[in-house]
Amino acid sequence: MKAATQTETWQWSSGNSVKPAQDLVAVEEPLEIQIDTRPISVTMRTPGHDEELAVGFLYSEGLLQNQDQIAAIKPYPRNESGNAINVLLKPEVKIDFARLTRHVFASSSCGLCGKATIEAVHQNFPPVNSNFQISNEILLKLPAILRKAQEAFELTGGLHAAAVFDLFGNLLVLREDIGRHNAVDKVLGFGLRNGTAPFSEHILLVSGRASFEIMQKALAARIPLVAAVSAPSSLAVEFARESQQTLVGFLRGDRMNVYSRPDRIKFS
Amino acid sequence: MKAATQTETWQWSSGNSVKPAQDLVAVEEPLEIQIDTRPISVTMRTPGHDEELAVGFLYSEGLLQNQDQIAAIKPYPRNESGNAINVLLKPEVKIDFARLTRHVFASSSCGLCGKATIEAVHQNFPPVNSNFQISNEILLKLPAILRKAQEAFELTGGLHAAAVFDLFGNLLVLREDIGRHNAVDKVLGFGLRNGTAPFSEHILLVSGRASFEIMQKALAARIPLVAAVSAPSSLAVEFARESQQTLVGFLRGDRMNVYSRPDRIKFS
Repeated sequence: MKAATQTETWQWSSGNSVKPAQDLVAVEEPLEIQIDTRPISVTMRTPGHDEELAVGFLYSEGLLQNQDQIAAIKPYPRNESGNAINVLLKPEVKIDFARLTRHVFASSSCGLCGKATIEAVHQNFPPVNSNFQISNEILLKLPAILRKAQEAFELTGGLHAAAVFDLFGNLLVLREDIGRHNAVDKVLGFGLRNGTAPFSEHILLVSGRASFEIMQKALAARIPLVAAVSAPSSLAVEFARESQQTLVGFLRGDRMNVYSRPDRIKFS
Repeated sequence: MKAATQTETWQWSSGNSVKPAQDLVAVEEPLEIQIDTRPISVTMRTPGHDEELAVGFLYSEGLLQNQDQIAAIKPYPRNESGNAINVLLKPEVKIDFARLTRHVFASSSCGLCGKATIEAVHQNFPPVNSNFQISNEILLKLPAILRKAQEAFELTGGLHAAAVFDLFGNLLVLREDIGRHNAVDKVLGFGLRNGTAPFSEHILLVSGRASFEIMQKALAARIPLVAAVSAPSSLAVEFARESQQTLVGFLRGDRMNVYSRPDRIKFS
């Protein structure tokens, strides 16, 4: 279960001849997430924290709400590669598998569109209602904390990171993955497993861009403030506004853009 | 069908007060791809070149092989938002929908794992067998050509790019998308629509990282050389080696790493 692995490469740079070398690359392997041995999803992920990934994914899909619903989490017995993980629920827990079809919207006036997608998410996850203020100084410090904690990223140059901070700028959890959505699922899964989620007084920071999917997962965990080092998408912005989430983009150096609910940030 | 849209933002930078401004963000909207009105897949994409995206996706999944199989491509009639696109096939074309379940592997010795995933892809798409040599000088020029052509990227900072070049370094097609895999599907779809695919004497350049999925799509279009500006994943490297593809990573400035089949590159 390594996050990075050595591989042979031929390195070339100007002025030098090509020569064999070893390079560290981020590991990418499929993971099948199951509920009670029923396959739910296959994702290409970086191994490590698979239990958190599985639980966080089910949490963000609205299928799981808390740790008490889980009886056990283990690899599917007949699988030797560790690439199938089985979330076994307590007998009394009823799962609404119909929620997994949430990407199909027949009755919306616009058919399939961003607006219908947002409305469908809100049927499971209403807008957040946390009210707090955080200073811009604390926000500005977070990317450096993220980078410092991101050891694997420094080695491979190939991993996305997601981290949850409290309102004082303390890092609660950081997870990495070759898939940006997996990194977010892992931090959500950590929160559910440890009883720290929902994160209604917290900040989610992602190392790359903010997409619809990132915002949707944040909403599932009740996160009121999402910050991204890079740009947001149009649907991320629209989703944040409809969900009363504060969305910060281009949080780097000594600048930021705030796309929604700027009142949660105190600028000085 | 815009790739970028204006949105309101509050900009803050050190030494300045926070002020309202307009920012261009990349558009993200769902697209449902259908074959003969049967829904096949929903992807979050940047609008534009939707026909190419749909055709390229079906091509990379092994469901379509050439333009002659297509009777028409049009939005699903009852949908007004343009977010459902319907690929209508000629009556004689038979589609093996079972191929869409390729991510489920029951009979492999390792269950679900990277190796089984590669083998499953090879059942549809055998390794490439093109033999050619391209100079490192030509390869090194490609990222600058890509960047120059990537106007939307310069505006929004949020789009991935994929481009196909010939062996002389001429740009055949460049497409952008908020999803890296969508950008590749669009260039493949362009090739299928225009009769220039399969791309057996061509190079695929992607603006970001090289994942398993990128390599698989390249193989579907018979592309023997894939270059990425950033890092490859472990499974991308493994896939390239098993598929006899040349894989170049970190192609930037005056350097590159070659992870497989370096014999296709002539270093001077």
